[in-house]
Amino acid sequence: MSDNLSAWILTIGNEIINGVITDTNRENIARELRSAGIFIRGMSSVGDVETEIVEALECAMGKANLTIVSGGLGPTEDDKTAQSAAVFLGQPVELNEEQLRRIQDRFAKWGRTMSPSNAKQAMLPKSSIPIPNDYGTAPGFAIERSNKHALFFPGIPSELIPMLRHQGLPLVWTRLGGSRKVFRNKTVIVYGLSESRLGEILSDISKDADNCHLAFLPRFPVIRLRIDASGENEGEANRVMSEKQDQIRQRIPENVISEDGTPIEEVVIRGLEDNNLTLTLAESITGGLMGEMLTRVPGASTTFMGSIVSYSNEMKKNILGVSFETIGRWGAVSHECAREMAVGARMAGGSSVGLSVTGIAGPDGGSPEKPVGTFYIGLSTEDAVISRRYFLPGARNWVKTLAAMQALDLLRRSFLGLRLHGDSD
Amino acid sequence: MSDNLSAWILTIGNEIINGVITDTNRENIARELRSAGIFIRGMSSVGDVETEIVEALECAMGKANLTIVSGGLGPTEDDKTAQSAAVFLGQPVELNEEQLRRIQDRFAKWGRTMSPSNAKQAMLPKSSIPIPNDYGTAPGFAIERSNKHALFFPGIPSELIPMLRHQGLPLVWTRLGGSRKVFRNKTVIVYGLSESRLGEILSDISKDADNCHLAFLPRFPVIRLRIDASGENEGEANRVMSEKQDQIRQRIPENVISEDGTPIEEVVIRGLEDNNLTLTLAESITGGLMGEMLTRVPGASTTFMGSIVSYSNEMKKNILGVSFETIGRWGAVSHECAREMAVGARMAGGSSVGLSVTGIAGPDGGSPEKPVGTFYIGLSTEDAVISRRYFLPGARNWVKTLAAMQALDLLRRSFLGLRLHGDSD
Repeated sequence: MSDNLSAWILTIGNEIINGVITDTNRENIARELRSAGIFIRGMSSVGDVETEIVEALECAMGKANLTIVSGGLGPTEDDKTAQSAAVFLGQPVELNEEQLRRIQDRFAKWGRTMSPSNAKQAMLPKSSIPIPNDYGTAPGFAIERSNKHALFFPGIPSELIPMLRHQGLPLVWTRLGGSRKVFRNKTVIVYGLSESRLGEILSDISKDADNCHLAFLPRFPVIRLRIDASGENEGEANRVMSEKQDQIRQRIPENVISEDGTPIEEVVIRGLEDNNLTLTLAESITGGLMGEMLTRVPGASTTFMGSIVSYSNEMKKNILGVSFETIGRWGAVSHECAREMAVGARMAGGSSVGLSVTGIAGPDGGSPEKPVGTFYIGLSTEDAVISRRYFLPGARNWVKTLAAMQALDLLRRSFLGLRLHGDSD
Repeated sequence: MSDNLSAWILTIGNEIINGVITDTNRENIARELRSAGIFIRGMSSVGDVETEIVEALECAMGKANLTIVSGGLGPTEDDKTAQSAAVFLGQPVELNEEQLRRIQDRFAKWGRTMSPSNAKQAMLPKSSIPIPNDYGTAPGFAIERSNKHALFFPGIPSELIPMLRHQGLPLVWTRLGGSRKVFRNKTVIVYGLSESRLGEILSDISKDADNCHLAFLPRFPVIRLRIDASGENEGEANRVMSEKQDQIRQRIPENVISEDGTPIEEVVIRGLEDNNLTLTLAESITGGLMGEMLTRVPGASTTFMGSIVSYSNEMKKNILGVSFETIGRWGAVSHECAREMAVGARMAGGSSVGLSVTGIAGPDGGSPEKPVGTFYIGLSTEDAVISRRYFLPGARNWVKTLAAMQALDLLRRSFLGLRLHGDSD
């Protein structure tokens, strides 16, 4: 950690203090600061009220030499942060022509005309330094008082975090100095272990050390395991990082989806590419979720042919060729149906692999033999067809998500020659 | 809002300020307070450090006459909240025999013996009033200084919220008095207007009044418009609410998806049910997202037959029956293809309605004529088939989400006889 830098996080918005939204900006900012080695003293939130924002700034800048502020830079009457920062400094706000032009350019790029209210977003405190926004309309800005600094960002996470990382923190290093240590962070994606189980397995290697910190961030259905490593120079930081990665990989070789934050859908698409395979899905319980996941990956169309979302039994029969006998005798939620769906998907898409999932997401439709949370996955290749049964009860969308995740993980494991999970026929 | 009660929320824990966990206690406490009509001034979080907790209490109790504190009441060394509250009051902590007995009883009930460290949880500031914990081990407590009050609760949500609701707030009403007003809230889902445009349209009716507050909560791709209304009695609160709802509905009749927070997928499923229709989708650009959305709704299987996610042109031809000529002459992203996909979906699912979407999500695949962000929606019924063109450029997943939303919204509009958006052939 840097000795001379302490930070406070201030988020602004009536919807935050009234509990209308979950304010994830606080934790995201905290993680960015931590991985830059900055010590955090605390965080606070106030509503969109000028006097409250000014008071909160006084309080935060009294406690820490760097304050990160988010929210309240929008175009509406509600948004009072820039005006409040100006009052805090005893200054007016002024129109920043360059930032106004950037906002206009952004609207032009979108093929729209700027609404007059957006001009307000270019009104910044007189002595502030603008922080251009490459991801949206509202620019951020930096202010200084008594050698203490505050950086202001819009509250939209996809704008805030890159702006903080790529423009805000470099500005901090320039202005405040700070540690010259080298920091590295990586996120290992873990699937198939509960947080407490993972904590037990890694307990002896997850203790805080001066040069390494491990954080468990459950993000259903995976756990993001964040490694923050540091060293006196690049070589040392990289060595600390790779030692920790090795330790984790050795403990949970089957459960590491990726070591650089890559989500499972991208791991699966890369696996298809590497093995020269193409994939077609047959989805019932997941309703299209697996296709949606795979098509998040740019260029997925080279390996992903499509998905037959056969919610009705008629579609299972007519499009996937599941036999009347199978549905009549074993039901649509069965090993037999999962296998026929996987074969049918492979044929329908003319692909080398077919992957299917059928099950009961609830709340209705369960039976004593096949309760809500039961699902079957089928996997068909040119050589063979297999199926697996799972029982992971929970709320409807929880079951849907896990069914999609298990199916993609089954495919991932098959690429790597790992043990397949689930119960056989 | 109650005139004489203002609150501050303080949560304590190193894992909170370092962003290791998502602290949902803040928003849950806020909602409890709001629904009791208590005005919230702000919230803050500090780590498990005595001096920080004492400072944070000074700050919070200086701003509000009620402070709700959570976290740091556990049995370990790390947990410093009770000790810090005692320091704040200039008092020692004392063992509370009754609370110790309750902790022992709870362990006995679980069939375990109490760990000696748990005795620490019965050490409370001398002048505090204990708040018994019926859900776990750590008791809460209330303190008072200069006629301002703070309530302390454990940070475990399943203990905190019932303790706050059933013991904490009744204590507040007894000690502080407070309003007997009645409160109502509703969330209107708005689609198809930017936040700034919506703000302009509603500017004169969105000003704060004593008995009504309107909050704009963008949750891409919709805006959640939250109405908080109050009155001296139920009738008055309901009247204020329905007046505001009427005003909003009159201003933006086409853009209100629902007035009670119902998401578009459920509105569409209800629309199908009400019109005795069944639906099959043909998805290309959305990759399965529309099917995933509709199947979030319990019971969707009655009206939703399925979706053909035809990512490859071969699937468009083979499964949906799009003609070779159409794809050769007009391309897969065209009015013609969208219409043939919609018809093909209707046939494939044997349903009364077919809805299709085909387009270019990017980052590659665009052309000068059909740049990234171009998509076409087709709608086929027993009577007719139509198609619409849209151009909404942006990042890949942004385009996918908007394409799904536009298609579901087109169907919703067709049910209601509203103007259809997009460009015709």
